Amino acid sequence: MTDSGTPTLQLSAACCAPASAEALQAPAAEELAKVFRALGDPNRVRLLSLIAASDSGEMCICDLTDPVGLSQPTVSHHMKQLAEAGLVSREQRGRWAYFRVINGTLMAAAKTLLPA
Amino acid sequence: MTDSGTPTLQLSAACCAPASAEALQAPAAEELAKVFRALGDPNRVRLLSLIAASDSGEMCICDLTDPVGLSQPTVSHHMKQLAEAGLVSREQRGRWAYFRVINGTLMAAAKTLLPA
Repeated sequence: MTDSGTPTLQLSAACCAPASAEALQAPAAEELAKVFRALGDPNRVRLLSLIAASDSGEMCICDLTDPVGLSQPTVSHHMKQLAEAGLVSREQRGRWAYFRVINGTLMAAAKTLLPA
Repeated sequence: MTDSGTPTLQLSAACCAPASAEALQAPAAEELAKVFRALGDPNRVRLLSLIAASDSGEMCICDLTDPVGLSQPTVSHHMKQLAEAGLVSREQRGRWAYFRVINGTLMAAAKTLLPA
């Protein structure tokens, strides 16, 4: 085999160093990916930002629709994904759901992936 | 309208507080979502983790295929998405591409979204 040949997986295997013991394994990677995936949509980023920036630290879903210009069912769908990822908590009060940012989820995910 | 009625957007508008001035606007939200979206896949999370955990701080693409059990074209595709999100830098040396984590991109995105 010469340098001009097409790289193959055999060559790749020959040159491979062992994976670092500190690198994330698949189950942990899936957990982190779930958090980041929830934020992979600009509307969900804005919704989380709105709640984080609110004076009381919580927002009614009824206050979240107008700023993002989406219908309430769509906002509810987005909020469900944020809640399932552990990024917000949800409390039902009468007819409305209220959301708070769960502090630390995002930062913990970032630090787990890329410890300083 | 009574409390037993279906919430409507009219009611929603009536109860809405103005959006906080600190909340992210759409273009900034899209920028952040791009970073998080790149990490919304467990394989890309593992790839970034492998590079971050490597002794030299950089990894050849030829060393990334085996740990994640994917073909080189698939790993190349994932690495391109990480590079486009500003999470890794890429340097071509001869036949192989080498990748380094761009420190700060992920943490800056997290802190922009949820300042402490």
